[in-house]
Amino acid sequence: MTARLAVLCGGLGGSRFVDALARAAGPEAVTAIGNVGDDVEILGLHVSPDLDTVLYTLAGLLDEERGWGVRDETYNALGAAERLGGETWFTLGDRDIGLHLVRTERLRNGEALSAVFAALTEAAGVRVRLLPVSDDPVRTVLSTPGGDLDFQTWFVRRRHQDHVLAVRYVGAEAAGPAPGVLEAIAGAEVVFLAPSNPFVSIGPILAVAGVAEELRKRSGPVVAVSPLVGGRAVRGPLTEMMVSLGHDSSAVGVASLYEEIASTFVLDPADSALAASVEALGLRALVLPIVMVDPERRQEVGRAVLEALA
Amino acid sequence: MTARLAVLCGGLGGSRFVDALARAAGPEAVTAIGNVGDDVEILGLHVSPDLDTVLYTLAGLLDEERGWGVRDETYNALGAAERLGGETWFTLGDRDIGLHLVRTERLRNGEALSAVFAALTEAAGVRVRLLPVSDDPVRTVLSTPGGDLDFQTWFVRRRHQDHVLAVRYVGAEAAGPAPGVLEAIAGAEVVFLAPSNPFVSIGPILAVAGVAEELRKRSGPVVAVSPLVGGRAVRGPLTEMMVSLGHDSSAVGVASLYEEIASTFVLDPADSALAASVEALGLRALVLPIVMVDPERRQEVGRAVLEALA
Repeated sequence: MTARLAVLCGGLGGSRFVDALARAAGPEAVTAIGNVGDDVEILGLHVSPDLDTVLYTLAGLLDEERGWGVRDETYNALGAAERLGGETWFTLGDRDIGLHLVRTERLRNGEALSAVFAALTEAAGVRVRLLPVSDDPVRTVLSTPGGDLDFQTWFVRRRHQDHVLAVRYVGAEAAGPAPGVLEAIAGAEVVFLAPSNPFVSIGPILAVAGVAEELRKRSGPVVAVSPLVGGRAVRGPLTEMMVSLGHDSSAVGVASLYEEIASTFVLDPADSALAASVEALGLRALVLPIVMVDPERRQEVGRAVLEALA
Repeated sequence: MTARLAVLCGGLGGSRFVDALARAAGPEAVTAIGNVGDDVEILGLHVSPDLDTVLYTLAGLLDEERGWGVRDETYNALGAAERLGGETWFTLGDRDIGLHLVRTERLRNGEALSAVFAALTEAAGVRVRLLPVSDDPVRTVLSTPGGDLDFQTWFVRRRHQDHVLAVRYVGAEAAGPAPGVLEAIAGAEVVFLAPSNPFVSIGPILAVAGVAEELRKRSGPVVAVSPLVGGRAVRGPLTEMMVSLGHDSSAVGVASLYEEIASTFVLDPADSALAASVEALGLRALVLPIVMVDPERRQEVGRAVLEALA
């Protein structure tokens, strides 16, 4: 059975929106299609930061304060690895490493990433369907004045201080959508583009062969939710990227990136003055509260969005 | 430069004796040649339980109470892995996992196990030279009434409850000694067989092509230290194995296993009545206190052995 709602999503903002929809419509109604462009191998472990954030959020394990990793985490493995000469610029907690160990072993045994996530979500009691957009490697690469950087080197290792001049998704054209991705997009009543970074979260999903085409084929709504509120991202370096990539760093700037693909654009009441500019792009504008840092707010945000679309 | 002392050793008993010699003669005087027959892959990690016990002992990190693993350990990664369906019958602590991650990554990048141990000991500040007997896989397999079991399945998973009818070392004939092993045996003033299990610790070392031959070629002393005191092992299932494999479960029984290879046999004062039987095998018997559970006792044990041999 195809879920009623499909969500293309990145990490923190995306996970919160998936959580919002799951709380409002029930977890079985939601399929999350996650970014793998920021996946990285650290200490020989396959880490999927965006999808793991979604998994941890839905399992109630996320460190909500920090916005990544597991609550009540310890760092003894990384400390030992550091003393023994291991690479430790990417912080991995002990509980988090438990997940990476299970995933990496299954991948090395030949399982597809999507099959691994199916097993992980089931074991974690998560009933939202979590699909990596592809089982094939897609890697987001950022061009900066100092040269090309893979996403985690740019974001974590160099603390996203380098000006981003261009973004590309290595492997995306050769990558096939994971089983269920195109069906989820085609069959959902509503497809959402979560309030995630358009360049490094949604971009790598849309770049996978067939995904953008499948979205364009839809007759039902494709609803993008603004990741910018009052011109700022709740978290992360989106504002700076909008500017350095030549876009207006506002909800309208984001809407213009999605005008070919989305039918509706949700923006926060803080940006209600921009609704007319969004409509001028040919998108339906919905003004609704979309800040959902607090887990208690999420059901309300999800309900309001679904009611406005009904 | 070849170290003055070479020690063939297994895990706990072996590590204590290596520590004893290092405390008495200085760490640079000692090369430890360690068993790899009980190496195992758990959660995709390459674990070397015997050599790691030696490393942890020498680094002052061993959980001396328990006899394995790291002091002040936590188990959050394993707990998370267990909840996500990972295999967790082999206990791995978080700090321990840090070591395994660094090792496994280096091995996957093509480094030899001996090169990895050289890097690990240096990073840990351990100045004893730690050589895995081979860079090639050697796996100890135990024949039991219920069938063949690899060492860790027999020892940990099934808690060494199965009667051992035979022991073999799969891969040993094809395995080459690691760089430095034969030179350490040939060049040392004294070669020791540590008070380790002869079947599952020393046996897999002697089975590696060339090792036993190199020992037999020596004109200088080869000194075996009894792992049995008063007919009991300080730790581990040696007594039961001696019996099930058809040997006398005493220091004399062990001495008879080494009569072809050793020139001298050290037994505890508790077994002084057995010295004559050891000498009857053609070995020189040395009666010296060899119980060194307490780290404070080790320097004394090491000194007494070296003085008696001087």
